[in-house]
Amino acid sequence: MVLLFLCPGVNPVGWSRELAALMPELELRIWPEVGDVTQIDAALVWQPPPGELQRLPGLRLIQCLGMGVDGLLADSTLPPVPVARMFDPGIVTQMAEYVCEAVLYHHRRLADYAALQRERRWQRLPWQDTVRRRVGILGLGEIGAHTARQVQRFGFAVAGWSRSPKVLEYVAGFYGDDTLPAFLQRTDILVCLLPLTPTTRDILGARELALLPAGACVINCARGEHLVEADLLAALDSGHLAGATLDVFRQEPLPPDHPFWTHPKIRVTPHVAGLTHPRTAAPLVVENLRRLQAGEPLLHRVDRVRGY
Amino acid sequence: MVLLFLCPGVNPVGWSRELAALMPELELRIWPEVGDVTQIDAALVWQPPPGELQRLPGLRLIQCLGMGVDGLLADSTLPPVPVARMFDPGIVTQMAEYVCEAVLYHHRRLADYAALQRERRWQRLPWQDTVRRRVGILGLGEIGAHTARQVQRFGFAVAGWSRSPKVLEYVAGFYGDDTLPAFLQRTDILVCLLPLTPTTRDILGARELALLPAGACVINCARGEHLVEADLLAALDSGHLAGATLDVFRQEPLPPDHPFWTHPKIRVTPHVAGLTHPRTAAPLVVENLRRLQAGEPLLHRVDRVRGY
Repeated sequence: MVLLFLCPGVNPVGWSRELAALMPELELRIWPEVGDVTQIDAALVWQPPPGELQRLPGLRLIQCLGMGVDGLLADSTLPPVPVARMFDPGIVTQMAEYVCEAVLYHHRRLADYAALQRERRWQRLPWQDTVRRRVGILGLGEIGAHTARQVQRFGFAVAGWSRSPKVLEYVAGFYGDDTLPAFLQRTDILVCLLPLTPTTRDILGARELALLPAGACVINCARGEHLVEADLLAALDSGHLAGATLDVFRQEPLPPDHPFWTHPKIRVTPHVAGLTHPRTAAPLVVENLRRLQAGEPLLHRVDRVRGY
Repeated sequence: MVLLFLCPGVNPVGWSRELAALMPELELRIWPEVGDVTQIDAALVWQPPPGELQRLPGLRLIQCLGMGVDGLLADSTLPPVPVARMFDPGIVTQMAEYVCEAVLYHHRRLADYAALQRERRWQRLPWQDTVRRRVGILGLGEIGAHTARQVQRFGFAVAGWSRSPKVLEYVAGFYGDDTLPAFLQRTDILVCLLPLTPTTRDILGARELALLPAGACVINCARGEHLVEADLLAALDSGHLAGATLDVFRQEPLPPDHPFWTHPKIRVTPHVAGLTHPRTAAPLVVENLRRLQAGEPLLHRVDRVRGY
């Protein structure tokens, strides 16, 4: 079994170590040193240069390094080979950490307290009971479900929205496009954890943000394309929304002249909410290689029509 | 039963409403309108002016409004009447919120990302596995135990230290003064939730802070007197410690010229980590008044020698 590591800019050392430990017989090649292209069975990819995968005639599996496959599927040169997305339990817990911090940060008005600190002002601000603060999670996949659970453990009133029904005992569930307005109207702190697909692109625009209660906050750590950036700025500047924590952007790296960098109500992080780590992610890669060898169904195989 | 509300500066409206709902027969008097002082059975107090409690000859219970009684016990005019401290389940959950936010904030380097945002720099910083990040909770009372549990649910390696042994399945326990150095040496993120007593005053000084590993962070939301402020500044400025989140201070309000306000590694909040709220706190007051009437032992009675 020959696996090509096709992830420009990603350090291969940890991957090489973890994969060798789990599957000693695996031959790992690090792009661009591809060797005999006819020998390559599978590719572990992140932002592969267009056309590179087409050069591999024996390719039977494209394993994505990240949980989001929207960028990969948008590549028109992608060969008709099965695609599996990543499922890294480490990313799931990292995302829950990021979201819980952001929810608590907005709940406890820590941006306002930071502004008071800059003015050296000792002033207590009005606060709201946690049980009355309504958090809404958009997207109830592995990440959304675990995050909702962690947020709920603080006592927040948590609801979740997804396109298809999910059974989660600890959140109020809203399912399907028809329920989105009602979900937004009851949400004080909105968290976007959706996959990016043609139907979720621009899902947070002026109309949706206007449905949030006055003083609501927005946390986006899914994809920049979920959010209409100009509409968020307008909703913050009008005073309708109180703040935002953003980890993802329509253009990454965020350009130096982008208004998000300097907006007093926006916290920017450079797409770090959840990062794939070889220690927690390599087991899935090895399992899918084993299944490929045995002719068994792949784990986390992508439905190219649905988009995730 | 007559209860005097002796809390200068605290709004009595919510207390009046909650107490009336739970105990309609209670007569509540709001200081300084004390009426016939011989009729007063109990006092609900927060920072009472020295000498005021001595004026109440029939006083049989001093119920403190806050969980910390160090200020009250330091009052040399305090009459020899049983003192009960507050136990407000709302404060316990608020404190856990505050601490979890601060632990995640330091764990995920959000102060560093805020500095990068101010420079409009898109840069990913090295990160550490949550399972390898060691959080240490000083104090395992109601607040410390619940907070340790909430922190542990994120997967951190949590240890707790207390003067007397506590059995908590989810934390590594260190008990007694002899174990404090070992506890500090294994703690990357230190959280102080101790009661303030003569033996815990100044418990975090130069010697203790030096025992923390390089790059450690300190979170104090107990009492300002636990921390030797000049020693914290020295440990931050030498580069030994990476940051601090502080909610309590030796002098409150924190004076405008205090170096904490402007220190780039220190986050200041104005003693808001846990605030007593009548909705969640009134049930204990009513229960202690009922016990007083029935001659039963008080809940959360303070041991004046131990200091909490």
